[in-house]
Amino acid sequence: MNLIILQSTEVDVDGRAVFSDARSKHIHNVLKAVSGQQVRIGLLNGPLGQGTVERVDSDKVVLQCKFEAETPPRPRIDLILAMPRPKVLKRLWAQLAALGVGRIVLLRAEKVERYYFDSHVINPDFYNKQLIEGLQQGRCTHLPEVQIEPLFKPYVEDRLGSEFSAHWKLLADPSGAQRLRYFQPLEKERRTLLAIGPEGGWTPYELELLKERDFELVGMGDRILRTDTATIGLLSVLNELLGR
Amino acid sequence: MNLIILQSTEVDVDGRAVFSDARSKHIHNVLKAVSGQQVRIGLLNGPLGQGTVERVDSDKVVLQCKFEAETPPRPRIDLILAMPRPKVLKRLWAQLAALGVGRIVLLRAEKVERYYFDSHVINPDFYNKQLIEGLQQGRCTHLPEVQIEPLFKPYVEDRLGSEFSAHWKLLADPSGAQRLRYFQPLEKERRTLLAIGPEGGWTPYELELLKERDFELVGMGDRILRTDTATIGLLSVLNELLGR
Repeated sequence: MNLIILQSTEVDVDGRAVFSDARSKHIHNVLKAVSGQQVRIGLLNGPLGQGTVERVDSDKVVLQCKFEAETPPRPRIDLILAMPRPKVLKRLWAQLAALGVGRIVLLRAEKVERYYFDSHVINPDFYNKQLIEGLQQGRCTHLPEVQIEPLFKPYVEDRLGSEFSAHWKLLADPSGAQRLRYFQPLEKERRTLLAIGPEGGWTPYELELLKERDFELVGMGDRILRTDTATIGLLSVLNELLGR
Repeated sequence: MNLIILQSTEVDVDGRAVFSDARSKHIHNVLKAVSGQQVRIGLLNGPLGQGTVERVDSDKVVLQCKFEAETPPRPRIDLILAMPRPKVLKRLWAQLAALGVGRIVLLRAEKVERYYFDSHVINPDFYNKQLIEGLQQGRCTHLPEVQIEPLFKPYVEDRLGSEFSAHWKLLADPSGAQRLRYFQPLEKERRTLLAIGPEGGWTPYELELLKERDFELVGMGDRILRTDTATIGLLSVLNELLGR
């Protein structure tokens, strides 16, 4: 926990926050903070700041909060992810938040089992907890927006285009021969939308439909990676190349 | 399984391989291969090739193997990893093999618990299975060499320098302000050694000792990532920038 995330409802008008949960345990047991000490805080979807410890014991912490004037910019990469296996997605949430993603669209694809959408891992109560854990790891405050799309064709044909009309659109697939470093120019001004297929890949039909929506194919070389590895890898490469 | 890995002892002098395990199940149940069909194969630490199915049923496959003349080059990145928590390392093995790593040194650091080294996940029987699974995913044949170093100081002071004398050495740490894309020139000719610290980071003493061995600090920006996320991210960025 490299940042204590607070929700706006937790901070009173005088800037005081009181909490008793994993965060207070962390401040008490790991940081071993004492009264008067400062800890790094962030307001969910808001600015970073410093919290001065007013009281701390094994199960309660009182912080006096002071936030910066500016909220950091929203992560400029959005993600369309063919719905991963629930076990994989469960581990991926926090990592996506830590790497920085603006919006995550979980999309059905032909090689995605329908029952994945019955899993508790796409329940907001579950994933928001994981995402906030990732923000606290990555020291960022922007909670990714999550959107569940269980129908491929209507979503891609009718809504994807308008939802991401101004984005630079990249489609990751083992068939993509183009490496990211050769894209000239890199679109550093626009937001980026990265689409990553299911294990086994997009079908030719799905690839076609996406390419018609202005996606450009990208590859990661000869290796075929698991989708969670590829997602982390491509987000890291984009963060590196786009200068964040 | 995007490649069927065979060990040299499994292929007889006539190029025939017989096996009954996860590989035969994959060929039968997933590829639904029939006699005469070709499947992609690779010889462990050797060349890629094609296997012609001679017989296939639910629990046995006979392949006639034909390998290419050349073995692909060994992955040019080696890794020193402060020993991760066993639960994390367990999941990491296959991903490291799929991303491509020549050698993996698992090193004790001050913020590494000693009991991590008692875990079965650093038993060769365990990790070789995971690594081969990763090779079969990533379609590569080079089994990473694994080296366990439970003593930081003697290893770094006495052996690291000579074991990696000609390597370009990079030390990943949140204190590293330098991003990989700004390294000029990127050392594309030498092998690369990437060192990644434990959760909580290297201590100042450890950082000093490593810097004295010609490591250059690199960072990944403002975000602090879990070490497994950082490892996958940095390997992906290096693979991208070094042209593989």
